[in-house]
Formats: sequence, C-alpha cells, structure tokens
Amino acid sequence: MRPDESRTVYDGKLFDVVVERWGEHDREIVEHPGSVAIVAVDRDERVVLGRQLREPARRELLELPAGALEAGETPLACAKRELKEETGFRGGDWRGGPVLWTTPGFVREQMHVFFATDVDEGEAQTEADEEIALERIPVADVADRLAEIEDAKTLVGLLLLLRSRGR
Amino acid sequence: MRPDESRTVYDGKLFDVVVERWGEHDREIVEHPGSVAIVAVDRDERVVLGRQLREPARRELLELPAGALEAGETPLACAKRELKEETGFRGGDWRGGPVLWTTPGFVREQMHVFFATDVDEGEAQTEADEEIALERIPVADVADRLAEIEDAKTLVGLLLLLRSRGR
Repeated sequence: MRPDESRTVYDGKLFDVVVERWGEHDREIVEHPGSVAIVAVDRDERVVLGRQLREPARRELLELPAGALEAGETPLACAKRELKEETGFRGGDWRGGPVLWTTPGFVREQMHVFFATDVDEGEAQTEADEEIALERIPVADVADRLAEIEDAKTLVGLLLLLRSRGR
Repeated sequence: MRPDESRTVYDGKLFDVVVERWGEHDREIVEHPGSVAIVAVDRDERVVLGRQLREPARRELLELPAGALEAGETPLACAKRELKEETGFRGGDWRGGPVLWTTPGFVREQMHVFFATDVDEGEAQTEADEEIALERIPVADVADRLAEIEDAKTLVGLLLLLRSRGR
C-alpha cells in the first residue's frame, strides 16, 4: 500500500514530517529511521536500565537502553552498539523479540526489541547530550517495580521478560 | 524542568514540532495533545480490537481502540468516546491503568491506558477517514495471538490484561 502523493513539510535533524495523500484524505506523518530497545540481563540476574532527562517529558524517566538506527546499520548491530554506549554492557546471548510500531497513528517508526542474557559490565560511552544513570533491578523485583515505569517500550520489554521467565 | 527557549518549527493539524534549547543542546520534539487506549472486555470475555489501515505503517494493523484527547476533555471521557465511536461498545466497569510516554525520545505524547469490563455492544460511528474492522478475541486465546501484535500500546495492554487475569 502506497500513498498517491507525498510531500515533505518539515526537514529535521532526527526526523522529517511528510504529508501523504491517501485517496480522499491527507495524513501528517513523522518519518523516523527506526529504533531498537534492549532488555539486557547481567550474570547476576539483574535487568539493566537507565535513568535520564527526557526533554519531551520534562523529567527523568527510567527506561530500557534504546536508540535510533544509523544508516546501513542492522537492528542487531544497533542494539549491541547502543547497549555498549549507553550502559557499557556487552557480550552475552542475544535473541530478537517483537518489532513494533511505537505510534502507528502518526509516526513511521518501527522499534526492534532485543533480549540479551549474561551480558558483561564495561565502560559506558554516552554522547555529550546524554547523561544516563545506570540502575540494575533484580529480575525477581521487576514485578514490584512495574508501577514506576512511565515509558511504553520499557513496560513492554519488562512484561515480556517476566512472561518468558514465568513470573 | 523547563527548556531555556522553545520555537515552533512546524505547525501541523494533528501535531506541531518545536525545537527546545536545554542548556548546551537543542531538542527537536513533536508536540501532541495526548491520547488514550482502551482494553475493553465484553460480557462474553472477549477483548475488543480493531483492524485498520495505518498510513505510517502502510498496512493494516490490529490494535486496541485508541485516540487523541480533544481540548478540555478528560482522559476517561475521551476513552469512553473513542471506544463508542470506533467500536460501538459502551457502558461497563472502568479502571485507569498506566499513563505512558509513547516515544519519550522525540514525542511529547502521554497515553492513558484504561481497562473496561462487561462492555455492551452498540453501533460504531467512525469518522470518514477511519475504516475499522472489529475483531473480538477471547481472553483465553490472547496469549496465543501475541506474536501477531505489531503495535506497542496494544502489546502493553494485552500483556497487562493477561497479567491481571493470572494468565
């Protein structure tokens, strides 16, 4: 399925906005390169999360490590890169989870969720405009912490983790 | 927490784009009025979902009923209105679920998730640019259908439903 017409109405740094003509109606759509989110569990059975200022929320949120795909990058390579940059964790056993539309009403962004186990600690290399405080939550405590989660992808990832562990 | 400066760089129909100055860096943010999503279960223990063309995905997706807040509308009123308009279902017992940032990296949109039980069938009143095919899935079958779900809010809602039912 394709639109009859598409025109770019905003050409941004992280995303563009296009207006597409679909038959009788126009749709305003944010174009994003796509992203990854990682549910990583270390060798001590703790999930690796990060707390950072999120300007859209105007406060700090506790989230899974995540980031945008770079040109030519596979989702798995992106996930390993983002986990390492944001948290320092690396290695481990990886499997792919769901590929989700984050906001299918008006954003063209697919998010690839990955699960990693037995990841090893290392040095984080966050970018200048990212300050991320690491938090590791024992898998056994995740169910009790769900009510704190305000980020959709993080809630999805933790609920799937609990389900896969029969918790 | 507030930005030092904010300027609107795109003034759209459903959303705007602003660039905010936070200390040393700029953030490009999509401004959205906020939204609701509803996990509604009818008197026969079936979850009410809709399948519709999502132009950002360029295909049909199976999703929870959902929609954007109108000016002055409370999230609960919006949720009841959207459920009725999109699916015809009404009435029932309602409770609030999580309030989630859908995409906190670049979209200022909070989504209010609601759970409704014992909803009653009625006539849908979809808008001209919305064509939604109703699907009702028995709660007992939801776990087996999770792999089909490609929409983040729908996966969150169904996982929370399963959890609340001990499934």
